[in-house]
Amino acid sequence: MYRRQALDAVRKMLADNGADAVIIPSNDCHFGEYVPDYFKVRGWLSGFDGSAGTLVVTTSDAALWTDSRYFIQAARQIEGTGIRLMKLKIAGTPSIAQWLHSLNVSKVLVDGDLFSRREFISLTKELAPAALQAVDDPFRAIWKDRPALVSKPIVLMPENIGGKSVVEKRVAVTEKLGCKGSFAYIISACDEIMWLCNIRGEDIEYNPVALSYCVLTEDCIHLFCHLESLSAEARGYLELQDVVLHEYGAFRDFLRGLDGSVTRICQTSSINVNNWSAAFANVKAGEEESLFMEDPTPGGSVAWLRSRKNSVELAGFRNAFINDGIAWVKLLKYLDDNIPSGRLNEFQVAEKLQEFRRECPDYLGESFEPIVAYNANAASAHYSVTSEADAARIKPYGFLLMDTGAHYPYGTTDTTRTLMLSDRNDFTGKSDRLIQQMRDDYTLVLKGMIDLATAVFPSGTRGSQLDILARGPMYPTGKMYYHGTSHGIGHHLCVHEPPQIRMEESPLVIDEGMVMSDEPAIYIEGQYGIRTENVVTVVPFKETPYGKFLKFDTMTLVPIDIRPVNFKLLTHKEEQWLYDYNEHVYNVLKPYLSKQEAYWLWKQIV
Amino acid sequence: MYRRQALDAVRKMLADNGADAVIIPSNDCHFGEYVPDYFKVRGWLSGFDGSAGTLVVTTSDAALWTDSRYFIQAARQIEGTGIRLMKLKIAGTPSIAQWLHSLNVSKVLVDGDLFSRREFISLTKELAPAALQAVDDPFRAIWKDRPALVSKPIVLMPENIGGKSVVEKRVAVTEKLGCKGSFAYIISACDEIMWLCNIRGEDIEYNPVALSYCVLTEDCIHLFCHLESLSAEARGYLELQDVVLHEYGAFRDFLRGLDGSVTRICQTSSINVNNWSAAFANVKAGEEESLFMEDPTPGGSVAWLRSRKNSVELAGFRNAFINDGIAWVKLLKYLDDNIPSGRLNEFQVAEKLQEFRRECPDYLGESFEPIVAYNANAASAHYSVTSEADAARIKPYGFLLMDTGAHYPYGTTDTTRTLMLSDRNDFTGKSDRLIQQMRDDYTLVLKGMIDLATAVFPSGTRGSQLDILARGPMYPTGKMYYHGTSHGIGHHLCVHEPPQIRMEESPLVIDEGMVMSDEPAIYIEGQYGIRTENVVTVVPFKETPYGKFLKFDTMTLVPIDIRPVNFKLLTHKEEQWLYDYNEHVYNVLKPYLSKQEAYWLWKQIV
Repeated sequence: MYRRQALDAVRKMLADNGADAVIIPSNDCHFGEYVPDYFKVRGWLSGFDGSAGTLVVTTSDAALWTDSRYFIQAARQIEGTGIRLMKLKIAGTPSIAQWLHSLNVSKVLVDGDLFSRREFISLTKELAPAALQAVDDPFRAIWKDRPALVSKPIVLMPENIGGKSVVEKRVAVTEKLGCKGSFAYIISACDEIMWLCNIRGEDIEYNPVALSYCVLTEDCIHLFCHLESLSAEARGYLELQDVVLHEYGAFRDFLRGLDGSVTRICQTSSINVNNWSAAFANVKAGEEESLFMEDPTPGGSVAWLRSRKNSVELAGFRNAFINDGIAWVKLLKYLDDNIPSGRLNEFQVAEKLQEFRRECPDYLGESFEPIVAYNANAASAHYSVTSEADAARIKPYGFLLMDTGAHYPYGTTDTTRTLMLSDRNDFTGKSDRLIQQMRDDYTLVLKGMIDLATAVFPSGTRGSQLDILARGPMYPTGKMYYHGTSHGIGHHLCVHEPPQIRMEESPLVIDEGMVMSDEPAIYIEGQYGIRTENVVTVVPFKETPYGKFLKFDTMTLVPIDIRPVNFKLLTHKEEQWLYDYNEHVYNVLKPYLSKQEAYWLWKQIV
Repeated sequence: MYRRQALDAVRKMLADNGADAVIIPSNDCHFGEYVPDYFKVRGWLSGFDGSAGTLVVTTSDAALWTDSRYFIQAARQIEGTGIRLMKLKIAGTPSIAQWLHSLNVSKVLVDGDLFSRREFISLTKELAPAALQAVDDPFRAIWKDRPALVSKPIVLMPENIGGKSVVEKRVAVTEKLGCKGSFAYIISACDEIMWLCNIRGEDIEYNPVALSYCVLTEDCIHLFCHLESLSAEARGYLELQDVVLHEYGAFRDFLRGLDGSVTRICQTSSINVNNWSAAFANVKAGEEESLFMEDPTPGGSVAWLRSRKNSVELAGFRNAFINDGIAWVKLLKYLDDNIPSGRLNEFQVAEKLQEFRRECPDYLGESFEPIVAYNANAASAHYSVTSEADAARIKPYGFLLMDTGAHYPYGTTDTTRTLMLSDRNDFTGKSDRLIQQMRDDYTLVLKGMIDLATAVFPSGTRGSQLDILARGPMYPTGKMYYHGTSHGIGHHLCVHEPPQIRMEESPLVIDEGMVMSDEPAIYIEGQYGIRTENVVTVVPFKETPYGKFLKFDTMTLVPIDIRPVNFKLLTHKEEQWLYDYNEHVYNVLKPYLSKQEAYWLWKQIV
């Protein structure tokens, strides 16, 4: 009823604007991975709260496009709203443009804050001859009980933890851009702004960022954020570092006021189309192209520079992994003691890890929604337990997959371990053949993880070239995982950032100082999921007449369960790596563990 | 003296045209790998006959750009001509455009036959504000003793060897292009035309192609070649297959006559700019873009379809590899018997292999200039011996690298083997440590070759994703090779065709039926070169709920020298593959070998 009224209000808005349809995506105006509630228009209108989906409302119809992860959930959540479900990548499903063409629409609206310049251009072509119009937030007036935009404290990331001053970063970005003459580099990604300005916020769940924009020029940085949230320390530092402070809401007017002769630089994939229009408001018609420059660095200059962590950041990461390793060892011992009772559930395991992490005074919170998934639950993509009521009880057999991460002031972690909960052959009541398959799958995932972690490669190698090292070992079994092998990890920032190692090509090269995950997996629907994830950093290997070679150094300090391993599937070198790794974890963590914990850990690794 | 006169004639031509410079590349108007003498303008003017180099002649100066392979040779060959040597990729070397800008040129000529549309556009931008003008061959009038354009017999490739009719191929290309309405697909690559029209020529050394163009329409193929060279059988077949025959020289006028409403399709990287202009001569100014379509298939529709060999072609390839295997075994036995004398030279080895190949009545000739390179000679890229006088004498120690291939009516081969000429530890007078390095390098090359040959991968995998399987094993030694890992091989056609497996990204996927090389290598300057090359074909592996998986099947039947192998560097599976491979070669070839040859082969593999 509530949804139908809201849809009616949207249709009235369409009529007022002389439009036939409006397209509502999932993202916010900064295009980050997590979206503040304020921007969840699609959820408000449809009831569907999955992470990916596009709603289209026309004057007499409505449809929601989403992917296979969400078919069941979306169908349930939109029931009774009159919205059709459009299943992406299923034969016969029209694209949004095809559907709108079939309805003979002539004018389509979007909130220009929620479409990047690049998306907008491509959608305009697809929808032609229908016109696509970008407007200012068309829901502001009609969404009555809209959640407020939060604005939480913004604090300084001190140079003794971040390693570089804002001025140093600005100079490096300016060099990377290589623009002659005066310019305005427009940045919309909040995590890039946090890194550039040595600040951190807490406006977005799990992500230590503040809602912000910035414009970098040859002289200074203009930072747009909620100024009353800025700590006195941060404010004082920023002013010394040639950062000019503005209110968040003053950004668009600032863009409108940009001088007509300044080169506008941005990534068209991350500037929203309303901001784009504002940035060129002062430019004579026909001169836009000569005053625009796409950021020439693959992935963007800020993301590129940020991805190569400096030595201070790397030292912080190592500390973060020690803290996290201690908590993990305590959790693993706790599980070893308590799983046999058969009384624990997934939610309690996640809570318990939080509890152990809180023993470290530096712990700031989780870096993403934790995944604790028992047996078949681990085979569902993006499974997470948000309440104890939904959580599965963990019986003392099968696999338990745990993927969680933490923020510390000096680094962010992300670790996945999969435990085989009993090593007795009769523990599942299942056939020996299935047990063997489980052991083999566990081993092949581990083998891929080790093969990537031990790779040596020449400088200039791209992620797509390395991907097969992690996936290759499982291919002869005809298995595959449908996500990337690796993502970069922020330094007390977002847990997902460039670069990536995936099957898809990207021009970004894997370079010294990068901190990235290594996480192959096997998912057997209805049965189990296995993923083993370490975080590695890229270090020099050697220089020869053939050039410079790099390798990975593993940072994660959490023991790997060797009980399920089928050693026949590992080479001698892989087996050696596994034992050496666990021993290394033991040696580093031992000083921080109680005698009982250290003894327990020692038993696990021999 | 001769060169200086020729350069003077070119300068007079520039003056006559009111131009300041002319740029002369290495290629011909079809952009193939080998260039007929008729097109070697750069060689005529400069004396430099390497495979890669661009000559620029201005009214008062001249310079030749070439890469490091040719610095010494080019300097020697251009001596006394007054031409400067410009060393590519050396600090301080200007680009052609930079150099011309420094001379303040205002009008630059090129022979529009020798620049692709894509190159021409990019060069035009680089040279601006100087004007770039494409003209008809400006050397025709001034190159007095120019070699004639050859035109040798053109014969039919019968369907019982090629596997598909011309009509079937035309329909497949048309579907791949997906162009609605009437169109003219313009093809300039001679090897694509040979495949499409089921014919073969011999106009270009080592390449069974005839100089030709073609235009494929929705109804027929227009073939442009030297009609008097066409065999009666081929002519009769082509006419039945809706191929309209034209003289080679009539091509440009045919393009000029293309109807104004027809969609012109081509690859801008392979149509020369004079042909491009002719193709749009009949199109109203401003309408060019709407009447042009770039071939939408990565690598081009014909190359894409051709790369997936049909079952008849694959059966032919297998026969070709049996023939070639027999000749190779005879050669290897001959070398085993005659190397100890220390009297053989590189040239004689190449000749001897030819001799053994000629014992097969189907043998048509070599598929490329053979490489037989002893020790340090094998470390020079593109080393080849063209006369006995230049050939190095082969002593009974060190490495001998042999890379040669053959054409048979039903397939083309390409094989590289590197022999260790003695397995005694004192055979070089060199230290044990060097001997160990030689054995290890040999083994790592072999390991990479095996790892790629035994790969399993999902359908949709691109070459760049597989490349590291061949290169990875040598990376921990800090070694590298600067060429691709794999190239496609034509079916009684050019030995190099798409797809490729290399470090560089290409969107072409490795798909069922492709026939490709697998050739990692290590080159140690001044010492030795090691390359081991087999040819593989892509076959189905299995289908699972995760999709379709593919693997390689090795076609080459030439034993691999196991004496140098350091088995400690191979896994058990790799070692097993090596023994199984040699045994397979023995079993397949045995029926064709004399008792002595078979016994010799048997001794090699156990």
